[in-house]
Amino acid sequence: MSNETRLRVRYAETDQMGIVYHSNYLIWMEVGRVELCRSLGVTYRDMEREGVLLTVAEVNCRFHGAARYDDEVIVNTRLGHVHPRMVTFEYEMRRVDDGLRLVSGHTKHVICGPDLKPARMPQKYRPMFGMNER
Amino acid sequence: MSNETRLRVRYAETDQMGIVYHSNYLIWMEVGRVELCRSLGVTYRDMEREGVLLTVAEVNCRFHGAARYDDEVIVNTRLGHVHPRMVTFEYEMRRVDDGLRLVSGHTKHVICGPDLKPARMPQKYRPMFGMNER
Amino acid sequence: MSNETRLRVRYAETDQMGIVYHSNYLIWMEVGRVELCRSLGVTYRDMEREGVLLTVAEVNCRFHGAARYDDEVIVNTRLGHVHPRMVTFEYEMRRVDDGLRLVSGHTKHVICGPDLKPARMPQKYRPMFGMNER
Amino acid sequence: MSNETRLRVRYAETDQMGIVYHSNYLIWMEVGRVELCRSLGVTYRDMEREGVLLTVAEVNCRFHGAARYDDEVIVNTRLGHVHPRMVTFEYEMRRVDDGLRLVSGHTKHVICGPDLKPARMPQKYRPMFGMNER
Repeated sequence: MSNETRLRVRYAETDQMGIVYHSNYLIWMEVGRVELCRSLGVTYRDMEREGVLLTVAEVNCRFHGAARYDDEVIVNTRLGHVHPRMVTFEYEMRRVDDGLRLVSGHTKHVICGPDLKPARMPQKYRPMFGMNER
Repeated sequence: MSNETRLRVRYAETDQMGIVYHSNYLIWMEVGRVELCRSLGVTYRDMEREGVLLTVAEVNCRFHGAARYDDEVIVNTRLGHVHPRMVTFEYEMRRVDDGLRLVSGHTKHVICGPDLKPARMPQKYRPMFGMNER
Repeated sequence: MSNETRLRVRYAETDQMGIVYHSNYLIWMEVGRVELCRSLGVTYRDMEREGVLLTVAEVNCRFHGAARYDDEVIVNTRLGHVHPRMVTFEYEMRRVDDGLRLVSGHTKHVICGPDLKPARMPQKYRPMFGMNER
Repeated sequence: MSNETRLRVRYAETDQMGIVYHSNYLIWMEVGRVELCRSLGVTYRDMEREGVLLTVAEVNCRFHGAARYDDEVIVNTRLGHVHPRMVTFEYEMRRVDDGLRLVSGHTKHVICGPDLKPARMPQKYRPMFGMNER
């Protein structure tokens, strides 16, 4: 239950240090987990339209190396701990060219209803996330 | 019918040229017009909650000088052409320190309902925007 | 001298209207022109390392339809007017699914040196941009 | 050694859930620590011009409540653990209106030279950061 997605660093994502501004890695994590969901058979957009939202409860991120403009980056995303009320995703990013490790981290998400209040993951989605039936 | 707002350049808004990445000026235009609305007696948030949305139909922007990290910037916003179906805002931005002219431009907005379809500005808001009654 | 690039709308690019926040289209224009340059034989990153910068002098953008989260978007970029001191790019964006026209516009760029002062495009790059020799 | 800064949520910072997209809180942390530095007598911009960079090595962030468009937010920033090679900042954000706790977290920064390689904090800046002399 893991997925690899590639993206290319945009000029807008750099800062005056000449490297990627760190908050952009959180956006790339989002790209990674959406593609992981897609590969598990879940289109996050559709799930959200059905009233199942994954709100971000926690972000932990360590920066090992710096991506630069026009670099190609691999975002590796894995499912971590899952529970009918919560999902954790784990990430590692590397630069394609030389394999430089950029970032590792995880995000923890609370399953919510359209009112943004905590809810349980509907049965139909549990198998895709490898959730135990009870 | 004009307003001056100040803001300070954030590190995240710079790019590897060492200057503000140009799309951020559009966000500052948004800050400027929201504050102009507030000074005219309209809280844009509340207007939107009542189902009146100003969607962006056109942006025109000329870049005269470059703002840099930590610069204080004055955003001067004025009402331009108004019509029950449309509002135009005009902007000029300067650096506080030396008055350097940064940007001039305008944005044109279509009044829409909550379904994002064109609508007419409700009567109660017309006077604030200086709209002719008929 | 045109190029088509595809991208997918990120959650971070949406706003509370449920559509793409308009300043993101400027970032997609950047993606489009970088890929157009690449297809013309110019890696913008390398050109910039050699001290040739294309600073943005003007942006004009009209919004025809709204892209939404997870939409695939085609960015069509063409070279417009060129001159040893200036380059214009023209853009049109459409949603892949139904061909909905999203945005049309252009950006005008001044060729600058590493000091951000106007300069003439070096001879070696002129043919790629279809610049007349004199 | 703490500082309170206020900011107002921009439309661009919201997402289609109708709340602030989470990566923006990292940008607000940056705003908070720059203002804390200023209150300690250090203009981060000038320090960086002298070749002292604080690169982000780690971010940890917990999301307790959601800020919404046009909310005023208080960013409370404190110095955490300091060392001649490293500085930690701690943050707590609340909504002004009702005191709703939004975010708590910390960022860890490595002191680097202009080449982005680890360095020791120059003597002149140590007292401001409360660094022990030896």
